[in-house]
Amino acid sequence: MAIVVQKFGGTSLADVEKIKNVARAVVREKELGNDVVVVVSAMGHTTDNLIKLAHDISKNPSSREMDMLMSTGEQISIALLAIAIQEMGYKAVSMTGAQVGIYTEDTHSKARIIDIKTDKIMNHIKDGKIVIVAGFQGITKDGEITTLGRGGSDTSAVAIAAKLQTENLGIERCDIYSDVEGIYTTDPRVVPTARKLKEISYEEMLELARVGANVLHPRSVETAKQFQVPMRLRSSFKLDDLGTLVIGVEKMEIYKPVTGLACDKSQVRVVICDIPDRPGNASKLFSLLAKYELSVDMIIQSYARSSNNTNDIAFTIDKDDLPKFMTLKDEITSIMNPSNIHIDEDIAKISIVGAGMIDRPGIAAQMFETLAKESINIKMISTSEIKISCLVEKMHAKQATEALCKAFELDGKDVALVHGTLPD
Amino acid sequence: MAIVVQKFGGTSLADVEKIKNVARAVVREKELGNDVVVVVSAMGHTTDNLIKLAHDISKNPSSREMDMLMSTGEQISIALLAIAIQEMGYKAVSMTGAQVGIYTEDTHSKARIIDIKTDKIMNHIKDGKIVIVAGFQGITKDGEITTLGRGGSDTSAVAIAAKLQTENLGIERCDIYSDVEGIYTTDPRVVPTARKLKEISYEEMLELARVGANVLHPRSVETAKQFQVPMRLRSSFKLDDLGTLVIGVEKMEIYKPVTGLACDKSQVRVVICDIPDRPGNASKLFSLLAKYELSVDMIIQSYARSSNNTNDIAFTIDKDDLPKFMTLKDEITSIMNPSNIHIDEDIAKISIVGAGMIDRPGIAAQMFETLAKESINIKMISTSEIKISCLVEKMHAKQATEALCKAFELDGKDVALVHGTLPD
Repeated sequence: MAIVVQKFGGTSLADVEKIKNVARAVVREKELGNDVVVVVSAMGHTTDNLIKLAHDISKNPSSREMDMLMSTGEQISIALLAIAIQEMGYKAVSMTGAQVGIYTEDTHSKARIIDIKTDKIMNHIKDGKIVIVAGFQGITKDGEITTLGRGGSDTSAVAIAAKLQTENLGIERCDIYSDVEGIYTTDPRVVPTARKLKEISYEEMLELARVGANVLHPRSVETAKQFQVPMRLRSSFKLDDLGTLVIGVEKMEIYKPVTGLACDKSQVRVVICDIPDRPGNASKLFSLLAKYELSVDMIIQSYARSSNNTNDIAFTIDKDDLPKFMTLKDEITSIMNPSNIHIDEDIAKISIVGAGMIDRPGIAAQMFETLAKESINIKMISTSEIKISCLVEKMHAKQATEALCKAFELDGKDVALVHGTLPD
Repeated sequence: MAIVVQKFGGTSLADVEKIKNVARAVVREKELGNDVVVVVSAMGHTTDNLIKLAHDISKNPSSREMDMLMSTGEQISIALLAIAIQEMGYKAVSMTGAQVGIYTEDTHSKARIIDIKTDKIMNHIKDGKIVIVAGFQGITKDGEITTLGRGGSDTSAVAIAAKLQTENLGIERCDIYSDVEGIYTTDPRVVPTARKLKEISYEEMLELARVGANVLHPRSVETAKQFQVPMRLRSSFKLDDLGTLVIGVEKMEIYKPVTGLACDKSQVRVVICDIPDRPGNASKLFSLLAKYELSVDMIIQSYARSSNNTNDIAFTIDKDDLPKFMTLKDEITSIMNPSNIHIDEDIAKISIVGAGMIDRPGIAAQMFETLAKESINIKMISTSEIKISCLVEKMHAKQATEALCKAFELDGKDVALVHGTLPD
């Protein structure tokens, strides 16, 4: 039999009725003839409640003890789900990260997985059991409990699938269940006619994840890509809906040059103005930012102006990192001697993504032209092989999104015409 | 430095403020110059809430998954207490039962401890850390999570202390903190003048525990007795109060023949009437009850009546076991052929306990005389070396308790006279 790894997030496990619903989704997969390994997150608001308890005791609790605390959330979920599945008359067994042998680095709160043992999982599967694994958690070789940080349960699920794949144990795919029904061409809350994609490539998914489509953590997509594990994003509340399949680009039928659009309003633009043009200036700046763990997204350095031999460096950082950046402002000034450091919070980053744009020139031009027709000024541009991002003023975000969706056929109006095989 | 093991129950850890209070109690012991190993239960109603969740999913959840679920309660407590102690500026580390190496039998929900590893605890102690261990839980040699059943955290604490004692690692004593201030001569809610005992022997404590003084689980007292670990029962809300020291009888100064009185209203009396007097009848009956795990307390078999060559067997069982007993009624009838099986729920068991009664004849007579003077009928009697129990009608329980407390000087009126050294 083939093995399907299923992952259910906290929203899907928020209460007893939802846990029973998840049990039905698991049993359904088993009834389809597959062996099932289920990875679960903590129930609904459990994690938030635990964090609150800790923060009521200390403003700065140690990360080791936070991992000890947080890992209980998933342990509660696995036990309750096992009980729910057993209640339906199926064999099930729950396992903590330590029991499986999900080994991580010796670091807390954002440990990376080093290795996953498959022998105990496989023994249970051979006994006909559905195996339920606590996501988000691991263990060091010294037996310390660790957690994997944001998107940790997705990472656990994909890493288990990847390891089963590596050992040729018959992995079929990794299904990520959540409260969303799949990947849409763009955020359906903004563009109600956004279409759900039947398929998307790992690369496109990665670009969309990075630009703010909060569906899958990039780490899990990267792992799936590396080990070529097909992932399916689907809703735990609509089991008949197959969601979106994330697969290698070579396995896809490419419909259109642009697959999706994302709008990210969580960044701010920083412009360091009139820096004397000396070699190594940019290097010093970004080394400093890296040292303080400030992630920089778009970067633009203008040509040196002949008049005064200075140039500007502009980049975007996460809004949450702005306070940290402000503490570095003086240091940057003393290193680079700019005329001014300008912060612009009134920006939105609109990105279009598509594996198909590799072979099709003119997509960027079409994007700029579309925005120009709407009289929307572009403040910054950055591109990758399969992505083009434009920074615009926040007030133009919705207008830009709608215009680009229309231009690149990301809305639903022509579904029947272009995607005759789509299930929805 | 000497090691003190401290145990805090769920009531002492019910909320963030109480956890901080426990942290102060721990730090206080450390400041007295002792190394400290803390064993904790789950916070307040955590266990009940987890049980409710499971029962909302299944009426009969598997004991393995219940252990997986329940063990999270203590894990939350250890992490939060470690954070609270660290917040006070002390080094602390939390450990699950698995991390310590508290090995149990391969059975769930009421596993017995087989062995406890002390190396990891001692390594942390050598690093100057306060070690916080999850009570109630253990692990099998195969890495399955188990729980120890009722009174489990007390058992964990005493077993750790016993193991440290066995290995000569310098155990000083095991302090059991709860919301009671120590062991009283009798229940102070019934007899407000009941006195708190400064000392009590393991044997007396065991008898009192068995007769319903719900302070310490007998299992933990037995372990403490076996390894001669001094225990102190004290209040987590009155840290200046030394509570009651439980020690070997040979180390005690015996003040009075009777140390304490307990009243147990949780039993029912069963009388199997007019059983033909055949050898092996009683054996068959109690084998059957044992097979169905019905604990029997007092047992009386009357002499065979010459008139019809039959006798009666009377015994008491826990009220909670009555439904189970009723399912066996027919089987008992077919085996023993009695004229009737009579159930009497209107009973209370009054027990007086004292290591001093071994050397003093006449204590039983004095008890019966006291009850007779009050016109209280005795329905059954059972005795051990240091205990005398009388079954009376429930309506007489309070009156019997008060009369016996007076007769055996268990009330507080003469404290100054008899116990000049008592702290209270």
